[in-house]
Amino acid sequence: MSSERFIYLPLGGAGEIGMNAYVYGYGKPDEERLILVDLGVAFPDMDGTPGVDLILPDIKWLEERKNRLEAVFITHAHEDHIGAVGHLYERLGAPIYARPFTANLARGKLAEYGIAEKAVRIAGTWPETVKTGPFTVGFVPISHSIPESAGLAIDTPAGRVIHTGDFKLDETPIVGEAFDPDLWADVAKDGVKAMICDSTNVFSPHAGRSEVSVGPEIIKMVADASGMVVATTFASNVARVKTLADAGVAAGRSICLLGRAMRRMVEASIETGVLKDFPTVIPPEDVNSMPRENVMLLVTGSQGERRAASAQLANGKYMGITLKEGDTFLFSSKTIPGNEKGVIRIINMFSEKGVDVVDENSGGHYHVSGHANRPDLERMQEIVNPQVVIPMHGEHRHLREHVKLSQSKGRASILAVNGMMIDLSGNAPKVAEYIETGRTYLDGSVQIGALDGIVRDRIRMALNGHVMVNVIIDEEDQPLGDAWVEIMGLAETGRSRAPLQDVLEEDLSQFLGRANAKTLRDDVRLEKELRTLTRKSTQSEIGKKPEVTVVISRLSA
Amino acid sequence: MSSERFIYLPLGGAGEIGMNAYVYGYGKPDEERLILVDLGVAFPDMDGTPGVDLILPDIKWLEERKNRLEAVFITHAHEDHIGAVGHLYERLGAPIYARPFTANLARGKLAEYGIAEKAVRIAGTWPETVKTGPFTVGFVPISHSIPESAGLAIDTPAGRVIHTGDFKLDETPIVGEAFDPDLWADVAKDGVKAMICDSTNVFSPHAGRSEVSVGPEIIKMVADASGMVVATTFASNVARVKTLADAGVAAGRSICLLGRAMRRMVEASIETGVLKDFPTVIPPEDVNSMPRENVMLLVTGSQGERRAASAQLANGKYMGITLKEGDTFLFSSKTIPGNEKGVIRIINMFSEKGVDVVDENSGGHYHVSGHANRPDLERMQEIVNPQVVIPMHGEHRHLREHVKLSQSKGRASILAVNGMMIDLSGNAPKVAEYIETGRTYLDGSVQIGALDGIVRDRIRMALNGHVMVNVIIDEEDQPLGDAWVEIMGLAETGRSRAPLQDVLEEDLSQFLGRANAKTLRDDVRLEKELRTLTRKSTQSEIGKKPEVTVVISRLSA
Repeated sequence: MSSERFIYLPLGGAGEIGMNAYVYGYGKPDEERLILVDLGVAFPDMDGTPGVDLILPDIKWLEERKNRLEAVFITHAHEDHIGAVGHLYERLGAPIYARPFTANLARGKLAEYGIAEKAVRIAGTWPETVKTGPFTVGFVPISHSIPESAGLAIDTPAGRVIHTGDFKLDETPIVGEAFDPDLWADVAKDGVKAMICDSTNVFSPHAGRSEVSVGPEIIKMVADASGMVVATTFASNVARVKTLADAGVAAGRSICLLGRAMRRMVEASIETGVLKDFPTVIPPEDVNSMPRENVMLLVTGSQGERRAASAQLANGKYMGITLKEGDTFLFSSKTIPGNEKGVIRIINMFSEKGVDVVDENSGGHYHVSGHANRPDLERMQEIVNPQVVIPMHGEHRHLREHVKLSQSKGRASILAVNGMMIDLSGNAPKVAEYIETGRTYLDGSVQIGALDGIVRDRIRMALNGHVMVNVIIDEEDQPLGDAWVEIMGLAETGRSRAPLQDVLEEDLSQFLGRANAKTLRDDVRLEKELRTLTRKSTQSEIGKKPEVTVVISRLSA
Repeated sequence: MSSERFIYLPLGGAGEIGMNAYVYGYGKPDEERLILVDLGVAFPDMDGTPGVDLILPDIKWLEERKNRLEAVFITHAHEDHIGAVGHLYERLGAPIYARPFTANLARGKLAEYGIAEKAVRIAGTWPETVKTGPFTVGFVPISHSIPESAGLAIDTPAGRVIHTGDFKLDETPIVGEAFDPDLWADVAKDGVKAMICDSTNVFSPHAGRSEVSVGPEIIKMVADASGMVVATTFASNVARVKTLADAGVAAGRSICLLGRAMRRMVEASIETGVLKDFPTVIPPEDVNSMPRENVMLLVTGSQGERRAASAQLANGKYMGITLKEGDTFLFSSKTIPGNEKGVIRIINMFSEKGVDVVDENSGGHYHVSGHANRPDLERMQEIVNPQVVIPMHGEHRHLREHVKLSQSKGRASILAVNGMMIDLSGNAPKVAEYIETGRTYLDGSVQIGALDGIVRDRIRMALNGHVMVNVIIDEEDQPLGDAWVEIMGLAETGRSRAPLQDVLEEDLSQFLGRANAKTLRDDVRLEKELRTLTRKSTQSEIGKKPEVTVVISRLSA
């Protein structure tokens, strides 16, 4: 006699900022019909994921239940919410719902996998809703740092849940809908069981500032600049791109967009009608024929990404354009933790060229965040007045702080990290189950598990170097010739001043010369002994214990 | 008829924050007698220097002129100033001068290489001086974030230069000498040709705060805490360690030091008389028998270092001690750019344990910098009144800004990066020569050049994986058996769903089967073809182009 329940299960995004993927379900236990909210990526780094292209949520749990999956809803088009739709669509096979701008970009991602655009269905905004299975889902416009962001009102027979998506309370957002407290109060007026809420800026103590506030300072900065002005921001921050472009035009400059994402975003915004009256842009090849003080470049690469336009300009040249003494480079952005070194690297390269860099440390306000700060989170709670707050979109520290904040306001709150299935049905939410979750790496063209050991091996080679040992064993189980060693990523000479390769080959050949028949017959044993000796000799020579690959070739089978 | 000249040549530290090493010389061109100021390290990271133990300045230029090197002077005991003395002493062979606390630590580093302590000579402070060759060098006490820091007054027949070392203007530094403007004015009163000056905080617009200012807030924070309190800071910041310990005692807590550096620094401070009346500490094994609210731990690892005490406590247990809900962890430190992820990782692990973390973002002031801010740099220029300012101890952006600052005050200034030899003899400094400089890596027990390609190979293996191909060619130049492939750090299966190893072995064997005699006879050609094919097949299977090592074993010589 198990009755229906309403569940929430984060598969990504609850315990990290990135790879958002939140499951909701309604039905009898283990028979719930399911929807997925967002399907994003996280970005790899050299520390933990060298060579990896993208980090995706592990959707195995959902894939195994794909016959119960009704649909995927995308709240907005940031990569950490939409980035995995192309890579994972085939494994889920459910229709994707999104607002037009988001849908435009989602379709582009699916097209790379040859998936038809009808896989993405365009959703209207509240009070329009999408009905699918036991769910009725409404896209409620909310302000953020990309056009057409939406929170979701998710209704089931067990009540209404609000999934805020990423948001800020911006009543003057330049591009797109202003935050409308009356609309949100209306959505919430009949009671909200739970609000699953963005936690990114819970540690920011002051109320967030509006997008409109950066305009005057940017206009002044651009007007005061003498040489060429180059500005970078997230391309998806279309409002900011417009503010920057308008500031350039006001200062008598022609605008040139550099970087694929910058052009793609402006294009999508114009195509979907989100962006109106954007200044005419000039092509990169026209830049060099114009006086520097009449040009403003808007470029990708606000996070110091090595291949982006900003890095290439810092390195030397991009699309024939070079920067020089007297030019100004503006970071209209915040450096995301972890990206500091890349950004600083670029700033130093600009410094070497004599280019003045203006950024968040320069005393002016050239950037505002797209996320609700602490007082904004409190205000949102007051407007929506949910029975319970479940923080999402945050690392553990953010979620914990958000729970504390909610409880300090006398509101129930529960800390749910990835894999914690929460039953929202009763009066108090409770943990129903723990699901195994994790990360999937897109590595080249292949998806691999984070725990497969593949990337671990790469990290080990990077830390320890790699020695390859080759031994040929003849038909009589005797070594044929000497051991052959190749080294990669290790010093060529060490303590004895002889080449490491020679030292190892000598040590291994000596070992083979005195190895007994039993060892020489036994691949496993021989390999182990050769590996151990190689590590020991290398350690003695150069003080490092390398990764070792042993290849034993037997002339007889 | 070339006359004597007075030169300045940074080999490290001018263009980066780290591995400080500054040469001064006096004499006829190319016959100058030389001294070296500081001999520090920089720290490796996974991005650019995976597996490297330490980054040292490339001292080849100096080593080749070691017969002209009079002495090494160490301004203070921070690793970026002293860290390389052990590793490089033998290559230079010159005596090291330092103040007692610094000398104590330098001797410890030399002892690791079996070098006798007499290699380090203890210097008194101004007006005492060290005379060596044409140089007279005085250690002038200056405040910083470690005991017994000194600026140097370097006299030659061509005049006096001030090398500030790292400094701040702190007239109430808790431990060690207060900044004494009269002393510095006195040192400078007969004229200073050049001031080579710390640039670290040139972008910090407000006057620096004194060490004494953090005490009250730390005392309050510790007094208000309920469970165990754990605090971390740089162990070498002995004043801070004392402030923290005193705050603990004031709150009725016993102090326990965790981490080798923490114990070593307190020990050296007490041994050399720098630190007086430090509270009695309890050993780690006594902690568990005491009420949590009566204990305060001072631990290493303010930068999130993986092996430090802080990280181990965050991971679970250190020396039998575990943290839990209700405990408080204080970062009395600033996160150095590049270390954000490591620090955040620890904070999230503490969050999972329910430990409250207090840091620079928590609203209180629990840390002050050890470097002079912009107004302090201006004040130092006024006190010393040098003819020219040469910024050091900074990345390019810092040096450039410091030059601009100096020039805006009507003072001559020159931007000299590593390898630029400046002639200070005339009325205006000028570039005399460009010297090739770089970085040396301590990698295991071996010193390797940054451009040797060794670390580059490690990075490539980390990004691309590694395929090893083995082929045996018999006496008739025919392949003996099939090609043998081992893969490391690559997905095991790809597009064709067959094991990558099998696919490669099949492709390579097919190639060998149809390869012509000319190719099979020619190792270089065969290797190239096998490598190209391996990369192509791997790309086709899994979308990655791996590093490839080919081993061709020929049964005939």
